[in-house]
Amino acid sequence: MKKLRIGVIGTGRIGRLHVENLTKFVSRAEVVALADIYIDQAREWASEYGITNLYSDYRELIARDDVDAVIVATSTDTHAEVSIAAAKAKKAIFCEKPIDSDIDRIHEVIAAVKENGVPFQTGFNRRFDHNFRGVRKLVEDGTLGEPHIVRVSSRDPAPPPISYVKVSGGLFSDMMIHDFDMVRYLAGSDVVEVTAHGAVLVDPAIGEAGDVDTAVVVLKMKNGALCTIDNSRQAVYGYDQRVEVFGSKGMAYALNDKPTTVEVFTEDAPRTDKIPHFFLDRYTGAFVDQFEAFVAMVLDGAPNPVDEIDGLRAVEIAKAAQQSLEEGRTVTLEV
Amino acid sequence: MKKLRIGVIGTGRIGRLHVENLTKFVSRAEVVALADIYIDQAREWASEYGITNLYSDYRELIARDDVDAVIVATSTDTHAEVSIAAAKAKKAIFCEKPIDSDIDRIHEVIAAVKENGVPFQTGFNRRFDHNFRGVRKLVEDGTLGEPHIVRVSSRDPAPPPISYVKVSGGLFSDMMIHDFDMVRYLAGSDVVEVTAHGAVLVDPAIGEAGDVDTAVVVLKMKNGALCTIDNSRQAVYGYDQRVEVFGSKGMAYALNDKPTTVEVFTEDAPRTDKIPHFFLDRYTGAFVDQFEAFVAMVLDGAPNPVDEIDGLRAVEIAKAAQQSLEEGRTVTLEV
Amino acid sequence: MKKLRIGVIGTGRIGRLHVENLTKFVSRAEVVALADIYIDQAREWASEYGITNLYSDYRELIARDDVDAVIVATSTDTHAEVSIAAAKAKKAIFCEKPIDSDIDRIHEVIAAVKENGVPFQTGFNRRFDHNFRGVRKLVEDGTLGEPHIVRVSSRDPAPPPISYVKVSGGLFSDMMIHDFDMVRYLAGSDVVEVTAHGAVLVDPAIGEAGDVDTAVVVLKMKNGALCTIDNSRQAVYGYDQRVEVFGSKGMAYALNDKPTTVEVFTEDAPRTDKIPHFFLDRYTGAFVDQFEAFVAMVLDGAPNPVDEIDGLRAVEIAKAAQQSLEEGRTVTLEV
Amino acid sequence: MKKLRIGVIGTGRIGRLHVENLTKFVSRAEVVALADIYIDQAREWASEYGITNLYSDYRELIARDDVDAVIVATSTDTHAEVSIAAAKAKKAIFCEKPIDSDIDRIHEVIAAVKENGVPFQTGFNRRFDHNFRGVRKLVEDGTLGEPHIVRVSSRDPAPPPISYVKVSGGLFSDMMIHDFDMVRYLAGSDVVEVTAHGAVLVDPAIGEAGDVDTAVVVLKMKNGALCTIDNSRQAVYGYDQRVEVFGSKGMAYALNDKPTTVEVFTEDAPRTDKIPHFFLDRYTGAFVDQFEAFVAMVLDGAPNPVDEIDGLRAVEIAKAAQQSLEEGRTVTLEV
Repeated sequence: MKKLRIGVIGTGRIGRLHVENLTKFVSRAEVVALADIYIDQAREWASEYGITNLYSDYRELIARDDVDAVIVATSTDTHAEVSIAAAKAKKAIFCEKPIDSDIDRIHEVIAAVKENGVPFQTGFNRRFDHNFRGVRKLVEDGTLGEPHIVRVSSRDPAPPPISYVKVSGGLFSDMMIHDFDMVRYLAGSDVVEVTAHGAVLVDPAIGEAGDVDTAVVVLKMKNGALCTIDNSRQAVYGYDQRVEVFGSKGMAYALNDKPTTVEVFTEDAPRTDKIPHFFLDRYTGAFVDQFEAFVAMVLDGAPNPVDEIDGLRAVEIAKAAQQSLEEGRTVTLEV
Repeated sequence: MKKLRIGVIGTGRIGRLHVENLTKFVSRAEVVALADIYIDQAREWASEYGITNLYSDYRELIARDDVDAVIVATSTDTHAEVSIAAAKAKKAIFCEKPIDSDIDRIHEVIAAVKENGVPFQTGFNRRFDHNFRGVRKLVEDGTLGEPHIVRVSSRDPAPPPISYVKVSGGLFSDMMIHDFDMVRYLAGSDVVEVTAHGAVLVDPAIGEAGDVDTAVVVLKMKNGALCTIDNSRQAVYGYDQRVEVFGSKGMAYALNDKPTTVEVFTEDAPRTDKIPHFFLDRYTGAFVDQFEAFVAMVLDGAPNPVDEIDGLRAVEIAKAAQQSLEEGRTVTLEV
Repeated sequence: MKKLRIGVIGTGRIGRLHVENLTKFVSRAEVVALADIYIDQAREWASEYGITNLYSDYRELIARDDVDAVIVATSTDTHAEVSIAAAKAKKAIFCEKPIDSDIDRIHEVIAAVKENGVPFQTGFNRRFDHNFRGVRKLVEDGTLGEPHIVRVSSRDPAPPPISYVKVSGGLFSDMMIHDFDMVRYLAGSDVVEVTAHGAVLVDPAIGEAGDVDTAVVVLKMKNGALCTIDNSRQAVYGYDQRVEVFGSKGMAYALNDKPTTVEVFTEDAPRTDKIPHFFLDRYTGAFVDQFEAFVAMVLDGAPNPVDEIDGLRAVEIAKAAQQSLEEGRTVTLEV
Repeated sequence: MKKLRIGVIGTGRIGRLHVENLTKFVSRAEVVALADIYIDQAREWASEYGITNLYSDYRELIARDDVDAVIVATSTDTHAEVSIAAAKAKKAIFCEKPIDSDIDRIHEVIAAVKENGVPFQTGFNRRFDHNFRGVRKLVEDGTLGEPHIVRVSSRDPAPPPISYVKVSGGLFSDMMIHDFDMVRYLAGSDVVEVTAHGAVLVDPAIGEAGDVDTAVVVLKMKNGALCTIDNSRQAVYGYDQRVEVFGSKGMAYALNDKPTTVEVFTEDAPRTDKIPHFFLDRYTGAFVDQFEAFVAMVLDGAPNPVDEIDGLRAVEIAKAAQQSLEEGRTVTLEV
C-alpha cells in the first residue's frame, strides 16, 4: 500500500492531535517528521509514535525528499510563510485555518500554490462532521431542491480567557469563521452580502476588550439563499452545533450528538444524556476524515474538499462581518 | 356559573371558527348574537348553534344590553371602526390581528379603549400554543436566564393566490406579524432595531406583485437579545412552526407537532408521521385557549395576555421591516 | 343530518364522560335520555346538557321509541342484563368492557344480540388511540409484513386502593384485559396459548389480597406471532402506554405522548415534558373516536370495529392468564 | 507506562478484530504473539501490526515468559482446553463466549482458574456498549430503584446460512446467550426461572434444521424482577438492539444508534438515518472497552467485569431455555 509521507509543522495541541489521528486512523498516511521551534518539548511524545526526524527549523523538514506533504499547524501568523516555503518545495499542503489574517498575504499563498502546482487543503474540519455532511449530501443529491434558507447555530460552552480575546482578532475571525465556511458548504454557493449584529451579553470584559460575545449574521448567497448564523461564547449546556437547510423541495436539520440513546423517566421530567462539552468530543471523526480526504486528494487525485479559495473566502467574509458590525450597514462582497 | 355573553361580529371563516370554539370548549362563554353585512348567508349555520339574534348591522349587536363582549372578526379595514364603536358601548373587545394597517388608526382605537376603560385583547393566538407557551414559561420562571438569542421559523405549506398577495400588505404585515409578536412574547422585551432581508425564491409572480416570498429579519430587543425570524411562503413538507430561546442559563426549543408518536422501520429509512399541513391543525388548542384567557380577563380580572399595545407593536415592527427591506438599512424603533 | 338518538344507562364517571364526549364532539349523535338507579344525583348535571328524559329504571329508557341505541355504562355485573334487555328492544348497543366476568353470561348476551339482529360494540377504546391505530394501520396495509413479535407495555401511575383490588377480579381481568384486546387488534389474529407470570413487587398488601401487581404474559397467536404484555400497577413517571409490532417486512413502535415538543438544555441533563399521568389525558381522542365509529356502524352500516366476540375473547384470555399463573403452566385456548 | 503483554490465540475474524482494537486503541496493551493452527495464513496480516512471534501450536505461545495474558479466540470447542492450559501457565485469560457448550467442561475451566489464581474474563462485549452501560448505571446508582421489569430486544439483520444453523447449538445458545447475560447485567441479579417460547416464522429451513428463528423468553430473577427477551433471526431494517429497565423509582430505555442526527422533511414522511446493519458497526466501542477493562483488571486489580461465573450462568440459562421450549414448561435454576 502506497502511503503519503507527511511532515507535521507545529506540535502544539492541534499538531499533536493531528499526529495522533494520522497514526492511528489514517492507514495510508505516515508521519515521517516533525518540526517546531520548541521541538525539544516534543521529543518524548514523538518517540511514542516512533517519529525520529525532529527539527526546530521547519525548513529542514521541508527539505527532506521523503516528505510528500506537510501539515501546517503553527501559529496563524506563520501559516503563510510556511505554506509558501512548502509550495516552493513542491509539497502537498494541509494548512490550519485561517490561512492568514491578512487577505493580501493569503493571495500570496494562493499565488505560490498555483505557481508550483501543489494541492492545498484548508483545515475546515467541520465539513467532515457526520451530521453536517449528512445535510450537505441532501443538498447535493437534490433531495432538498434549491436552498432558500440556511441556519447555523454555533455556541461554545465557555468563553476563552480575556487575554486571548484581546489577540483573537474578534469573534468573527476567531469563532464564526468556521460557520462562514459551513454556510458556503451547505448552500453550495458564495456569499455576496453580509450584515452583522453583535452584543455583549456574556461578559462585560469581552466588550471592554473591544469584542462582542453574542452575534447574529445574515448572509445573502449568490444563488439567492438567505442564511443566518448565531454564535455565543457561552452555552452553559455544552457545545451547541446545529445546522439546517430549507429548500424548494424539503428541509433537513442536524441536532446535537448525544453520547447514548438512553432516555430516563422518573418522577422528574424525562431526561437524556448531555451534549458534548468539548469540540474534540464532537468533531472526533471530522478531524480524522479531513485527513482521509487529504490523502485521497494527493495520492488518488480525488477532488479537493476545501481548497485555498475556500480558505480565502472565509477570511473575506469574517472581515466583511466585522466591518458591517462597526459601520452598522450591509457589506457587499464580490465573488 | 356566570357566563360572558359574547357577540361575534364577522362570520367568515375565522368568525365561524371562533363561534364553534366558544360554544364547544369555552364553558364560561355564551355566544348570544352575530353580526355580518351578509348575515343571511349565516342563518342556517347559526341555527345549528342555537344563535337567534342575527344582525346585518353590527351596531345593533353592540346596542344590546345582554352583550358583554364583542369579538371583531371582520375584514381588517373595519377592525378599528367596530372596535371604537364597541369601546364606546363599554363592551369588552377581542379584536383579530392586525388591529389596523394604519398606525394612527390603531392609536385612535387605543385612545377609545382607554377613555372607556374597556379591556381589549388582540388575536395573537400563537401565544397560547402549547409548545410556544412551554418555552415562554421557561423564560418567565428563570430556567433559561436572561434571553440572548431568540429564533423563530415560520413557514407556510403553500403560497396564497397572487390576487391575495397583491392586497395583503406584504409578507411582513400579512405573515411575519405573528412572529414579531412571538419574538416579543418569548424575549419578554420590546424591539428597538429591525433589519430585514427578503428574496423571491418560490414564485416570480410574487415578486412581480411587489412582494417577497422568503425573508429573514433580525431584531434587537431592548434587553439586548438578538432575534432572527425566517419565513417562507412554501414549505412543501407542511406547516413549519418552531421557536428557540437561548439564554444565560440554558436553551429550549419547540419542534413541530406530529399526529402520532409512531416510528416505522423498514428496509427504507426510518420514518415518522408528517407534520400538520394546515394552521388549524396546529393551532387548534391555541384558538380555544385565547378565549379562555379573554373570558378570565373580563370576568375575573385576570391579566390581559395580549393587549392593544401588543397589537400596535407588531404593526410598527412590520412597517419597520418593510422599510428596512426597501431602504437596505437597519430601522430603529422607539418604545 | 340524520342523528343517532342515544340513551345512556349508568351516569357514573364513565357514563358522564360519554355524555360529554357525545354531546360536544360527535355531531351525528344526540343523547336523548339517561338512566341510573341514582338518577336524582345526575339531574343538575343532566340539565347542563339539556337532557330531560331521566329514569331510575333503565327499562323505561329502553322502552322509548325515540332511543335508537343505548350505551351500557353501569357496573359490570349488570352489563349482561341491560344488554340483553336492549337487544330484545332492538336497540343498537355499546357496552363497556368487560361484557361480563362470567363467560356463560357473555354467551347469553351474544345469543340475544344474534337473535335480535342488533349491532353490539364493546368499549375497548384503546383501539381508537391515535398511536395504536397508527401502528395497526401499518399491519393492515402490509407495511410491516406478517407480524412475528408484538410487545405491549401498559403501566398505571399508581395502584388502586386495596379495597378495590379485593373485588377487581385480579390484574388480568381488571387491567391487562385492555392489552389482551390490543394484542389481538395489533396482530390481527386470535390467541391460542397463554403463559402468565406475576409478582408482588409494588405493595405486599396487593399480594395479601390475593393478586399480583407486576405481570408478564406471553401469548401465541393463531398466525404464529409471539406476543408479550407487561403490566405494573405503579409507574412513578406516569401512565406508560406503548406498543410495538415486529414483522417480516419491518417494525413500528409508538412511544408515549408528551404534552409539548419542548426540549430544555441547561447545566443539568436535557429534559422534555412529562408523560400524561391520567388515562383520560392519554385516551381523550380515543373515547370520542370509538363513538364516531359506533355511530357510523349503526347509521351507515360501517364495519363493527369491536364486536361482541372481541369482548368475549378478552375475558377468555384473562381467565386463561389467571389459570396459567395459578397452575404454573401454559393454557391453551380454542378459537 | 507498564503494558500488558498479550498473546492472541485464534486469528479468525474475531481474533483479528481483537488484535486491531488492542493495537490501535488500548494504549496499555501490547500484542506480542499470535497462535493459530493455520498461522501461515496470518503472516502478512501480522506483519502489518509488527507482530513477529507466530505459532501454529498455541502451547508455544503460552510457554513464553513475556506473555502476561492470553486472548482465547479459537473455535468454541477448544476454549476450555486452551483456557485450562493458560491457567496452568499462570496467564491472565480473556475467553470468547461461550466458555464451552458443556457445563461440566466449564466447571473444569473454573476449577483450573481458581487453582491457579488467574483472572478470567468472559467476552460478553455488550456489557460495555455505551447505551446498555448507560442503563445499567441508572440501576447501579439507584435512579431506577428496585428493578421490576427488564426488556431486551435483540434481532439480527439476516439469518446465518442453514449449514451454520445446523451446528450452532440452537438460537438460545448461539444468539440469545448474549441477552441472557444482558438481563443478569441489567437486573443485577441471577435467573431462577426460565420459560421459553419459539416459532419458525422467518425460514422453514431453520425449522427443518431443528431450530427456531423467532423466540420470546421470560425469566424470573432472584430479586423478583420479571424479564422478557425477544429474538428474531431477521430484522429487515437492521441490527435491532434495545433494552429497558422498569423499576420502583423509574424507567429507562436505550434505543438504537443512528449514524447521524439528521432529520429530513420532504413531501414524503419525515425520515432519519437507518440503524446500523452490522454488529461491528453497533458494538465498535464495546469491543475496545472490554479490553480496557481487562487490562485494568490485570494490571491495576480493578474488579472483574465479566467473570467465569458469568460465563457459566449464560450457558446454564441457554440450556434451560432449550429445555423449556422442548418440554413446554418452566425450568427452574438453582443459583
